[in-house]
Amino acid sequence: MSAWLMAVYWRGMNAKETSDLTLAMAHSGEELHVRDTISPVVDKHSTGGVGDKVTLAVAPLVAACGVAVGKMTGRGLGHTGGTVDKLESIAGFRSALSREEFMRILIQHHIVLAGQSSDLAPADGKMYALRDVTGTIESIPLIAASIMSKKLAIGASHLLLDVKVGSGAFMKDFERARELAQTMVDIGRLAGLHTVAAITSMNQPLGRAIGNALEMAEAISILRGQGPEDVSELCHHEASELLVMTGTADTMSEAETRVERAIGTGAAVAKLAEVIEAQGGDPHQVERPELLPKAPVRTMLLAPRSGYINGIEAEQMGLASMHLGAGRFKKGEEVDHRTGFILQAKVGEYRQAGEPLVEIHARSESEAASVQDPLLACYTWGEVPVRVGPLVYDTIRP
Amino acid sequence: MSAWLMAVYWRGMNAKETSDLTLAMAHSGEELHVRDTISPVVDKHSTGGVGDKVTLAVAPLVAACGVAVGKMTGRGLGHTGGTVDKLESIAGFRSALSREEFMRILIQHHIVLAGQSSDLAPADGKMYALRDVTGTIESIPLIAASIMSKKLAIGASHLLLDVKVGSGAFMKDFERARELAQTMVDIGRLAGLHTVAAITSMNQPLGRAIGNALEMAEAISILRGQGPEDVSELCHHEASELLVMTGTADTMSEAETRVERAIGTGAAVAKLAEVIEAQGGDPHQVERPELLPKAPVRTMLLAPRSGYINGIEAEQMGLASMHLGAGRFKKGEEVDHRTGFILQAKVGEYRQAGEPLVEIHARSESEAASVQDPLLACYTWGEVPVRVGPLVYDTIRP
Repeated sequence: MSAWLMAVYWRGMNAKETSDLTLAMAHSGEELHVRDTISPVVDKHSTGGVGDKVTLAVAPLVAACGVAVGKMTGRGLGHTGGTVDKLESIAGFRSALSREEFMRILIQHHIVLAGQSSDLAPADGKMYALRDVTGTIESIPLIAASIMSKKLAIGASHLLLDVKVGSGAFMKDFERARELAQTMVDIGRLAGLHTVAAITSMNQPLGRAIGNALEMAEAISILRGQGPEDVSELCHHEASELLVMTGTADTMSEAETRVERAIGTGAAVAKLAEVIEAQGGDPHQVERPELLPKAPVRTMLLAPRSGYINGIEAEQMGLASMHLGAGRFKKGEEVDHRTGFILQAKVGEYRQAGEPLVEIHARSESEAASVQDPLLACYTWGEVPVRVGPLVYDTIRP
Repeated sequence: MSAWLMAVYWRGMNAKETSDLTLAMAHSGEELHVRDTISPVVDKHSTGGVGDKVTLAVAPLVAACGVAVGKMTGRGLGHTGGTVDKLESIAGFRSALSREEFMRILIQHHIVLAGQSSDLAPADGKMYALRDVTGTIESIPLIAASIMSKKLAIGASHLLLDVKVGSGAFMKDFERARELAQTMVDIGRLAGLHTVAAITSMNQPLGRAIGNALEMAEAISILRGQGPEDVSELCHHEASELLVMTGTADTMSEAETRVERAIGTGAAVAKLAEVIEAQGGDPHQVERPELLPKAPVRTMLLAPRSGYINGIEAEQMGLASMHLGAGRFKKGEEVDHRTGFILQAKVGEYRQAGEPLVEIHARSESEAASVQDPLLACYTWGEVPVRVGPLVYDTIRP
């Protein structure tokens, strides 16, 4: 297997080979076949970024629009966060669900947000361990097969992929991101899972919050129509895409209208509270995010100069949040749900020297102080504003 | 290691990487450092062919000219024979020598022909087993490192490589053979072993004899100046090359004269008898080859048509000899030293229908009969003679 992984690393695989591998991995353990019970039922996956709370908002948004969402989601590792960690900032929330619990909650509530079960696609974990020690992690078909095998084992009818590209993403350049997106859409086509991949920007942190409870609170703001513009726009776009994919809306503009209505009526945020309660969590923390756990120390990092913010290095900012306990250096570590950052300014904005730049939420004054220099190093400044590019670069369809 | 072998298979290695690997393999077990005891001391290696008894003749020829030869040599596998198997057709001959025996015989007789010791370069055997199961046998740098690691562990001062190319060789095309030769010469240069590689033809069996005792007898003929023209010429050439490499002769023509003198005086054949006796074998079988073991059945395959012989498919002929017991299908099998073929006609010669084509030496009438059709299929005929190409295509020097 090690030799084979290395051969794939250097030689690649064609679409048929990649989908055959992915199906074999999907068949290597338990399979949920959720679309045999509810259809359509959607799944959504992001390749990971900094401040990426999109799943937390999109899943209840789509469910509030009448489309079932059956999702398993991972923990954070390195500079990127994980949806399960963010959900677990809510008191009592349980992500480890049995197959029966997963199906029961999905049927009752048309939404379930579980942790990734190790019973699904167990070949993936074994192969990943070999890829790790053989230096073959960075193979597009192997990355694609790893992601898609777990999706196929769940068995949704529709899958929206968010392939992040940029300084804060695993894919640093557009061409590789596009290749990964195309490879996954091809697997979906050959394996009978309707898959669409959006290639989206991760050149600065998404939204303003970085850190588990802080991002949970921001997701709640998005569902209330009060979120930061960039991440709200992306959530609306992805939710709309899922409504169109499943035939729930005929056009993107019709879909956008339904999404805005779900937000305006409070149905979206109610759906988040509903799934959290169904999974043992405290729904009051959704209704009143001020009840979410709070870090004992809050300090404000001020702008060291006046000027336009021309860049915020997302990966470095993710690493700084890890040093506050918000992320994991290695698998199995605990995270501190309370810590992280609230960005007070984003790319393209002007700040005077001394104005607020980043609100630091830390366990101690000393930890808060220790990330100030790394945070300042994340910023590039200019005399003129840079143009902020589009959030969605491209969309790959079957 | 499996992943690494596959990476090398697809990506290759540069000269420095290849020699570093080879030295690491050479240092993985016992090392003889023979040139610290006698210098010059030569080694000689053939990549293997059909009817290739060149080592059997060249080693005593060179030793009879005053240059010490310390050689370990392998067993046959598949369609190619092995020098140890041919030597063991002589009653009593022992190829498994201890380190002390090897050095003592080399010092006393200036020639030793041992079997390959598993104590030398043990990493090679382990890596070969992995290459076998990972499909990475056919990598030029890995083949070169495998051969050269064992040579470096013996520690001769000079090494002559015979890289065979053609239908009966492992290398079927000239460019790959040339690349292998160059790679091994580069390893020798970087590892301090003076190495020359001759690239020679294996498009038809070498000489007339195929099979262990039959080839032993032909080697004795060569040392008496009575061998077939092609193989005798190659033996003289390689022996002369070794004399020039070691500075024992100044020019190839001076070397040729010394080689012919060693044959003419009987010194060459006496040296073969001497080493065989030193290793426990019966020297009378060298003096009187009719005492070598004989197959119970001899039948003559006749030419099925008149014409010029335009080709003799060496690999297929080697495979036919395996079916008589002369070779091994897999490692560890016994071989029958008595069986094989004596070719009665070679490429470029004319034969009438019904004239002798191949003398078959077999264990039984039925086995002799069973190889007739495969043997006939090895021959291609024409109305006009083909030009027989040169035996030595090229020589690679450091």
